[in-house]
Amino acid sequence: MTEVPRPAPAPGRGPLLEGERVLVRRKEGESYLLALQRGTTLIDGLGVIDLTAAIGAPEGAEVEIAGRPSRVYRPSLPDLVSQMRRRSQIITPKDAVTLVYLAGVVPGSTVLEAGSGSGGLTLFLAEFVGPQGHVVSYDRRPEHQKVARDNLQRSGLGDRVTFREKDVREGFEEQGVDAVLLDLPEPWEVLHAGRAALRPGGYLATYTPTYNQLERSVRALREEGFQEVRSLEMLERGLHVGEGGTRPEFDMLGHTGFLASGRKMA
Amino acid sequence: MTEVPRPAPAPGRGPLLEGERVLVRRKEGESYLLALQRGTTLIDGLGVIDLTAAIGAPEGAEVEIAGRPSRVYRPSLPDLVSQMRRRSQIITPKDAVTLVYLAGVVPGSTVLEAGSGSGGLTLFLAEFVGPQGHVVSYDRRPEHQKVARDNLQRSGLGDRVTFREKDVREGFEEQGVDAVLLDLPEPWEVLHAGRAALRPGGYLATYTPTYNQLERSVRALREEGFQEVRSLEMLERGLHVGEGGTRPEFDMLGHTGFLASGRKMA
Amino acid sequence: MTEVPRPAPAPGRGPLLEGERVLVRRKEGESYLLALQRGTTLIDGLGVIDLTAAIGAPEGAEVEIAGRPSRVYRPSLPDLVSQMRRRSQIITPKDAVTLVYLAGVVPGSTVLEAGSGSGGLTLFLAEFVGPQGHVVSYDRRPEHQKVARDNLQRSGLGDRVTFREKDVREGFEEQGVDAVLLDLPEPWEVLHAGRAALRPGGYLATYTPTYNQLERSVRALREEGFQEVRSLEMLERGLHVGEGGTRPEFDMLGHTGFLASGRKMA
Amino acid sequence: MTEVPRPAPAPGRGPLLEGERVLVRRKEGESYLLALQRGTTLIDGLGVIDLTAAIGAPEGAEVEIAGRPSRVYRPSLPDLVSQMRRRSQIITPKDAVTLVYLAGVVPGSTVLEAGSGSGGLTLFLAEFVGPQGHVVSYDRRPEHQKVARDNLQRSGLGDRVTFREKDVREGFEEQGVDAVLLDLPEPWEVLHAGRAALRPGGYLATYTPTYNQLERSVRALREEGFQEVRSLEMLERGLHVGEGGTRPEFDMLGHTGFLASGRKMA
Repeated sequence: MTEVPRPAPAPGRGPLLEGERVLVRRKEGESYLLALQRGTTLIDGLGVIDLTAAIGAPEGAEVEIAGRPSRVYRPSLPDLVSQMRRRSQIITPKDAVTLVYLAGVVPGSTVLEAGSGSGGLTLFLAEFVGPQGHVVSYDRRPEHQKVARDNLQRSGLGDRVTFREKDVREGFEEQGVDAVLLDLPEPWEVLHAGRAALRPGGYLATYTPTYNQLERSVRALREEGFQEVRSLEMLERGLHVGEGGTRPEFDMLGHTGFLASGRKMA
Repeated sequence: MTEVPRPAPAPGRGPLLEGERVLVRRKEGESYLLALQRGTTLIDGLGVIDLTAAIGAPEGAEVEIAGRPSRVYRPSLPDLVSQMRRRSQIITPKDAVTLVYLAGVVPGSTVLEAGSGSGGLTLFLAEFVGPQGHVVSYDRRPEHQKVARDNLQRSGLGDRVTFREKDVREGFEEQGVDAVLLDLPEPWEVLHAGRAALRPGGYLATYTPTYNQLERSVRALREEGFQEVRSLEMLERGLHVGEGGTRPEFDMLGHTGFLASGRKMA
Repeated sequence: MTEVPRPAPAPGRGPLLEGERVLVRRKEGESYLLALQRGTTLIDGLGVIDLTAAIGAPEGAEVEIAGRPSRVYRPSLPDLVSQMRRRSQIITPKDAVTLVYLAGVVPGSTVLEAGSGSGGLTLFLAEFVGPQGHVVSYDRRPEHQKVARDNLQRSGLGDRVTFREKDVREGFEEQGVDAVLLDLPEPWEVLHAGRAALRPGGYLATYTPTYNQLERSVRALREEGFQEVRSLEMLERGLHVGEGGTRPEFDMLGHTGFLASGRKMA
Repeated sequence: MTEVPRPAPAPGRGPLLEGERVLVRRKEGESYLLALQRGTTLIDGLGVIDLTAAIGAPEGAEVEIAGRPSRVYRPSLPDLVSQMRRRSQIITPKDAVTLVYLAGVVPGSTVLEAGSGSGGLTLFLAEFVGPQGHVVSYDRRPEHQKVARDNLQRSGLGDRVTFREKDVREGFEEQGVDAVLLDLPEPWEVLHAGRAALRPGGYLATYTPTYNQLERSVRALREEGFQEVRSLEMLERGLHVGEGGTRPEFDMLGHTGFLASGRKMA
């Protein structure tokens, strides 16, 4: 087997390390997001557990929890999404990854976000900016931001995010950032401030549930001088492969939100 | 203004550097992906240009090209996509980012891909694995791989990708990788090899145009012992905000491909 | 006011007639499909009612039922659909009207249908063939056909339909008909018989839930010599106009069935 | 073979009659909508033809046109749609049949329509109201109405339609009708007049391209006291069954129009 060429040892590879966030998957199917710690801990819904045996073991290591065989993995982004605690409806993965793309967010990016909500989009941003990027997440509602902060902390990505409890209508504190993402009821009120915070070439994107909000956002993007303005929606259709054949799923989410984006050019 | 906290200076920020890939945008709208070099160069379709003035300047710096004012930016992922040269139909961004998500690809990931095609998915993978990740892209057709290789080189992400001219039905050369992505006519032939190359917890995802291929892929994923098997399609609907009001775009791509994914658990 | 020119007094216009099927709508919203009869009747869920006052009255006449004001209307096709009793999932209106169109069903048409199911499609066919057309509905399962027969009788369109308790794989008893509609698990087994029953220029249409069934149906239509073969699906997306603006409904039926049609040409 | 029970000989069945509208289909595929007349006629694009042999013959009768074998059929509704001459974009069949359903249009209905446009919706209404129903089609633009009138005449359904060259903002001339269909830029201006023209229990439906128009229509329907207000859109997705398997068509119409309907209750 050939070694994959790689500039440096990738983060989050190799044996599981003490203190890392891990996903513990019991044989019956439930999964838990936990810190890999030495000794016994009391976990809600699990009882007393001991993960010591997994420290230094490879991914997929077997441990016994409450008498049942379980396995320990590094959590993937889909794992982190499924383990989020929600105060309100969180953004769907399809919309989150599309916003990441439309806003040009890549490893190393510095990104502003408002509002934090339950941290659903924050999680995607924190994951994709990577260890060398950073996210600043604004919300004026302390109770929402607490949920977001807890979710990011539990996901192990908390140190990539700075939370600011502030109304962004008073302006962003940063400038020269790569992207601004707005999941707000009235994003048009913040476009001027968002543009001021962007570097030339950077993107601003909005996420809103109604056509009225989308329309007003797009018109405001144009009025503020944004270029390459786009607007779209993503529909996800599940597919069922069963004994009797293949068909689309009967259940489908008919709507989540409309996406718009624009770019600040010099 | 507050400084954004950041572990280290992010790559690709600050003044434009000699040798970097840049996007030169002329006032009339056309854009060119070029290397930022000292002195004059002859560029197809542009004539003789001189980008010397942009070296050391901030993003958005003005230069004059063939007598017309132009601006120099670092290319975003959407820029790189729009600048790709296609040998065949390339994957749409909506499908590429969804595959990135389904396969758990994040900064630092090591990813295998087959086939390279024109490098459309390769570009997304190379971007999102970041400077500490790596992509190995297999294709047995030298003429396709050449296009993919050129596209990745032009995008400035070529050093994150190893190309292998090989039929993956003979197996992958790597193991312990985070994700395997298959854009092949008969992905089921490669699922066993793909599973062998994955680390525990890693994902394999397929992208195929017909239901027949999707069905066979999903059945094979189950037979090979993959878990968390999912299949879906993404539909993108553009929205038009015009003088007369807002409506979905009349033009829509009715179909691109079906996506399936599964996870290797110990 | 000008009189609308009309070849003859339209059926089902003018004062409500004794014996007609009527929709009784109580002020609170529930509706009942009843025969307009003289004297008192005991109705499940309504108690003893007396509709005598509505006989000879115009549509919308007020009657009192169990002490509450109610109105009497001629039932519309949407009313009849909502009043159907279901043994199983019935066809959606969007699919039923599309099948009517694809199969060229118009007032005066003679149409064969298999199977009857709960009579969902039968109802649409009986309505649109009008008083001069006819529907023959086959089902080999007596318990299904009883439900269909009762539904058509309750709708007041029962005399436009002949039910045959028979397996259509043994052939249709009619020939020279205008259209054949198949809502069967294996429609391809019946295409030859269906073609034999059609007049030149007539259409056969199928309705099946899986891609596998659709594919096999379309291939069989071609092999049997049908022309103008088409296949498609219809998606209905509800729209919500609320205080806060307009957006697509969150709930959506992701799939019902695939439609295919072909035409017998000489 | 059993005779299909039928109250009376259906119209448009039996041998082809002199004077009837027929579809002449040449072996190469083109079709022509013509009157079945004795003797020779000069037809644009066909040359001199003689259909005498088809008079009294059954459907599918063979005639020779310009030296090529051709067949004569009664035109189906899909045939009539494909033979329409368009001044502007005409309504798609999916929207036309859905409007027919939402508005409760059935054989025998009397229906008002505004505007006539090219007669696309008029054709569906004229077909489905049958020989005992009637359509009154308003348009204030003589040049549009001429196209609609010609299309209906060519289709053989012209005697089911009364055209009125009039602005419906001045009111409808009829009352007690079963349904009112509005394909106008500002349908809300006509809802009051439309409601006045309806019988109790009758439906009004609108068809508009933008969300803004839909929203205003729905709000106006509610303000005018309409009940059972619905709004939706229909998406048609073609399916391709080819050698290599089955998949949705790549081409898709992303948008046509939004539909809304309401009912006048006493």
